[in-house]
Amino acid sequence: MGRSSKGRATTAATPTVILVRPQLGENIGMAARAMLNCGLSSLRLVAPRDGWPNPKAQRAASGADVVLDKAKVFASVGEAVADLERVVATTARNRELSQRIVTPRRAAGEMRAWIAEGDKVGILFGPERTGLTNDDMVQADTALSIPLNPQFSSLNVAQAVLLVAYEWIASGEGTATERMSDHSTRPATKDELQNLFAHLERALDQSGFLRNKAMRPAMVNNLRALLQRTAMTEQEVRSFHGVIKYLAKHKHEEE
Amino acid sequence: MGRSSKGRATTAATPTVILVRPQLGENIGMAARAMLNCGLSSLRLVAPRDGWPNPKAQRAASGADVVLDKAKVFASVGEAVADLERVVATTARNRELSQRIVTPRRAAGEMRAWIAEGDKVGILFGPERTGLTNDDMVQADTALSIPLNPQFSSLNVAQAVLLVAYEWIASGEGTATERMSDHSTRPATKDELQNLFAHLERALDQSGFLRNKAMRPAMVNNLRALLQRTAMTEQEVRSFHGVIKYLAKHKHEEE
Repeated sequence: MGRSSKGRATTAATPTVILVRPQLGENIGMAARAMLNCGLSSLRLVAPRDGWPNPKAQRAASGADVVLDKAKVFASVGEAVADLERVVATTARNRELSQRIVTPRRAAGEMRAWIAEGDKVGILFGPERTGLTNDDMVQADTALSIPLNPQFSSLNVAQAVLLVAYEWIASGEGTATERMSDHSTRPATKDELQNLFAHLERALDQSGFLRNKAMRPAMVNNLRALLQRTAMTEQEVRSFHGVIKYLAKHKHEEE
Repeated sequence: MGRSSKGRATTAATPTVILVRPQLGENIGMAARAMLNCGLSSLRLVAPRDGWPNPKAQRAASGADVVLDKAKVFASVGEAVADLERVVATTARNRELSQRIVTPRRAAGEMRAWIAEGDKVGILFGPERTGLTNDDMVQADTALSIPLNPQFSSLNVAQAVLLVAYEWIASGEGTATERMSDHSTRPATKDELQNLFAHLERALDQSGFLRNKAMRPAMVNNLRALLQRTAMTEQEVRSFHGVIKYLAKHKHEEE
């Protein structure tokens, strides 16, 4: 394939999803919805069975109409991939073709690298039931197969689009794998935790909870470990100070 | 939570999916299908709106009936998680709760570690539209949020189950990220590639293609690099020998 489009590649920074001979409008709409959830918006359709536009696709898109409105229709796979430098083809089966088969995760990384180099990238998805033919598959550089339960592999085309698109967005930069939900606070410092523990220890000493001298070191260490493990926020440390203060005071009044 | 079930944990080697107050039978069936695709089969339902069993769920399961047939129904989230040591709760939104939030990928790794230790693990999914309440969320150790397009996050519950279950199966051992589709052959050895290239070079020398002495080294190296990059199989190397042999012979006859 020609490299002449390199200079224009900055306008195509995400892969194009190409649905080959899709049958059900619902699946086209659900595929569009899955795409937009994952930051993809370039859709091509090769010979959709029920013509185009398709009201059933619109209904199933649940607000992802922008993807359907911009969708381009082609008569053949060859025409749909003509301007692309890299094509990945999804397949559910082993085939007689000698083709490199990658997972969606690997494909996402490779597509990011290709796009960074300025290549235009497309991903082919086959029709319901039959999938892509060998004639379709040979239009691709790389085959993509989603590793599933060998005893039950039955994804519809919209689900396949969702998983491949999800790996695309998950492979992007800046996805922290862990964070705290409450932005109004921050993790407590070790100093704050030490102060909290000292407060608790005094209160427990006064209450008689730690009166057994032989047991005391183990009990103190277990409590300290427990507090450390909870990974408290600064807000929670302050709340906990209040809890101890209140309980200790209450206890005092009871005596 | 008690650790008394440790001894029985070998019978529960995968996480349990818990659908909380699910509304549409179709979504329950699609969730079951998504689960079985990813090797999960333990399903619990908390107060399904339309009762249980639900024929619409059966129809949407596309053969994953085994998951629905074994599904257990509970009246409350508390009862549904009572025998579990670890609970992950999926959420689409930032909440006022201070809870650790992880991605599906991180959650999959943590769930595998918990299960390896013998813990029983459940994953809560909320009802369509509203999602899990704060009262539901606090039943969980960990919140799970799927990183999606901030401008358009609109997954239905079955799609959320698919992505979380997919990360579960993808986190398992033995998923090669790349393989060849044709099991009747193997990657060519470097020796076989050298022989092939020597054959090509002889044929090209005889044909006069490499007659320009100054250009010859660069041309040879470019061809060699090209052949290396194609990552040929042994079968393809043999085919290519045939191609060269035939072309060279044909050429000879033309002269």
